[in-house]
Amino acid sequence: MKIDESTPKADGFRMPGEFEAQEGCIMIWPKRPGSWPFGAKEAGKAFAEIANTLVKTEKVYMLVDEETEQTARKWLSNQVELVKIDTDDAWARDVGPTFVTNGTEIRGINWSFNAWGGSYDGLYPHWEKDDKVAAAFCEQMGFPWYEAAPFVLEGGAIHSDGEGTVIVTEACLLSPGRNPELSQKEIEDRLKSYLGAEKVIWLPYGIWQDETNEHIDNVCAFVKPGEVVLAWTDEETDPQYAYSKADLEVLEKERDAKDRAFRVHKLLIPQQPVCIREEELEGFTFEEGEDRREAGERLAASYVNFYIGNGVVLVPQFGDNHDQKAVELLAELFPDRQVVPVAARQILLGGGNIHCITQQIPLGMDRV
Amino acid sequence: MKIDESTPKADGFRMPGEFEAQEGCIMIWPKRPGSWPFGAKEAGKAFAEIANTLVKTEKVYMLVDEETEQTARKWLSNQVELVKIDTDDAWARDVGPTFVTNGTEIRGINWSFNAWGGSYDGLYPHWEKDDKVAAAFCEQMGFPWYEAAPFVLEGGAIHSDGEGTVIVTEACLLSPGRNPELSQKEIEDRLKSYLGAEKVIWLPYGIWQDETNEHIDNVCAFVKPGEVVLAWTDEETDPQYAYSKADLEVLEKERDAKDRAFRVHKLLIPQQPVCIREEELEGFTFEEGEDRREAGERLAASYVNFYIGNGVVLVPQFGDNHDQKAVELLAELFPDRQVVPVAARQILLGGGNIHCITQQIPLGMDRV
Repeated sequence: MKIDESTPKADGFRMPGEFEAQEGCIMIWPKRPGSWPFGAKEAGKAFAEIANTLVKTEKVYMLVDEETEQTARKWLSNQVELVKIDTDDAWARDVGPTFVTNGTEIRGINWSFNAWGGSYDGLYPHWEKDDKVAAAFCEQMGFPWYEAAPFVLEGGAIHSDGEGTVIVTEACLLSPGRNPELSQKEIEDRLKSYLGAEKVIWLPYGIWQDETNEHIDNVCAFVKPGEVVLAWTDEETDPQYAYSKADLEVLEKERDAKDRAFRVHKLLIPQQPVCIREEELEGFTFEEGEDRREAGERLAASYVNFYIGNGVVLVPQFGDNHDQKAVELLAELFPDRQVVPVAARQILLGGGNIHCITQQIPLGMDRV
Repeated sequence: MKIDESTPKADGFRMPGEFEAQEGCIMIWPKRPGSWPFGAKEAGKAFAEIANTLVKTEKVYMLVDEETEQTARKWLSNQVELVKIDTDDAWARDVGPTFVTNGTEIRGINWSFNAWGGSYDGLYPHWEKDDKVAAAFCEQMGFPWYEAAPFVLEGGAIHSDGEGTVIVTEACLLSPGRNPELSQKEIEDRLKSYLGAEKVIWLPYGIWQDETNEHIDNVCAFVKPGEVVLAWTDEETDPQYAYSKADLEVLEKERDAKDRAFRVHKLLIPQQPVCIREEELEGFTFEEGEDRREAGERLAASYVNFYIGNGVVLVPQFGDNHDQKAVELLAELFPDRQVVPVAARQILLGGGNIHCITQQIPLGMDRV
């Protein structure tokens, strides 16, 4: 059921923090040849590992089409529920619904999706299927959903603390490929109305060369209200240094909707830049108009792109010296959860990471 | 006369430093509506000021077409020589010939030009006229010229100290839009052969968001052999900080072709980011497929984009607190030249600066 004459805030709904209790998680089985090399074989394994881990503590809905259904079924635990919805790629965070709750009921939000920039700097030339995913999922699963289109946004561009504060990056939300006709103030008002928030914190940057125009979910994430991790490097010659430093400066002077100062934990990025290898490049097939990978290209690798599920935190690993440090810090910050390291190079090759391919559905008392 | 069976180095030619004696300078009268707002009126004034200043101490060749000839003639000193050659835009540095000398004779080099990235990330969709400018100018003026095409390069992507050392940026020369089929070593060999050089110094970055893929001529320039200025900021939260710091690190550990350590002078970038204003944006007309300006977009403003002419140094000014500092530092570094401040916002709006719209012709004893 589409709701287009009201907003979540007006109806008493808010976007919960990811650390709040969940009903489940939406994922999409990978197949796009320009994102997932060599027939998405290695990517599929990584997706399956994540789904099969998550399904132990929450429902997992895996979107498939005619072509991927069989492979997905083969790799996935029987508990994972397959849902037939066509997509252009596998970024459930960005094309799936963003969910809001009023404490009992759960509703979805359908943003307009334009492949991270449309004709300005979008990453693929056709995104019609992706743009329909959120509404299709809500309809199929019986979630009422708010129509936020034509406002352009992706789930990875926002993080909510569940208590009235939303964090975003200026680099992404003010990028001309999103909503160029809206002022920063107007964008902020939309976020507040749809996410049921009181305050939006604007960090200037995300991760250097992040092709989403620097989504917040790769650079900074809430571990609880008032407390965040921020991607960090102490290497002053790394382009990320200035980006993270500028973000830190904002976090240090801002206060959240509840007038709390932020507690910021620095989460080091990989010590060695993670770059595309020649032999990996050979596995991609790009279509006309699609953004291409290039050998040696530095990928936007960040441990901040973790996913918080019921009882677990899934953390990307890159075979880097800092892998272990990331796991240790998150284990400290999430003492009640099991921190699960996941080999994530194969997901990163597609342009995102664990958080980008997952979208949580909060626990709704009405559905339990 | 085209030379395509030899290279400058094989023939005993080298690219002089810009600070060596010059015969003259090539410029192109601006008109492209996607680069120069409001009919290029203000841009024309700035171009004319530069040409009229330079013509006092060297020849100035201004390229014009049927349409711009009259306006150019009106604004320019009579001593400026108009040369009829069609172009796509006004970047003489990048589309004009790069000149080499053997001490008596001067020859040109024709690089392949693809609008800073061709179909990968070029800035305009058609560059056929621009690509022909270097050869056309040499033919018309009687300079023999080396055919370096299909090797893609622009004049702004290289600086030579005239004594065997060339500086470039990795960000530009290794960008996939230039020569993706060549390795870094192969690119370096081409540079040495065509510029008559012994050593290429690779700085990692240029100026943040410089749409040329970070040309060297906006970030670092020789003031004499062994001595450079480097664009700099002490603001750790400015994205330029890490870029400049990484460049400095290379310069501090490298030695030039004569085994000299570099003396590096830090030239502060403007204190306030120089951004496009809404009212300026209204003056542009972009064609299909052309890279667009956006309101609030930060431009790649840098004082390093100065031009060294006979007896003068023309320095861009932005109406910023650091304008005067830049003039003072350059006056110190060029004690024998007159440092001339030039209001350059109108040139920067087009995407480059004084050095980008000028191309020096070294003094050839045979022609004097």
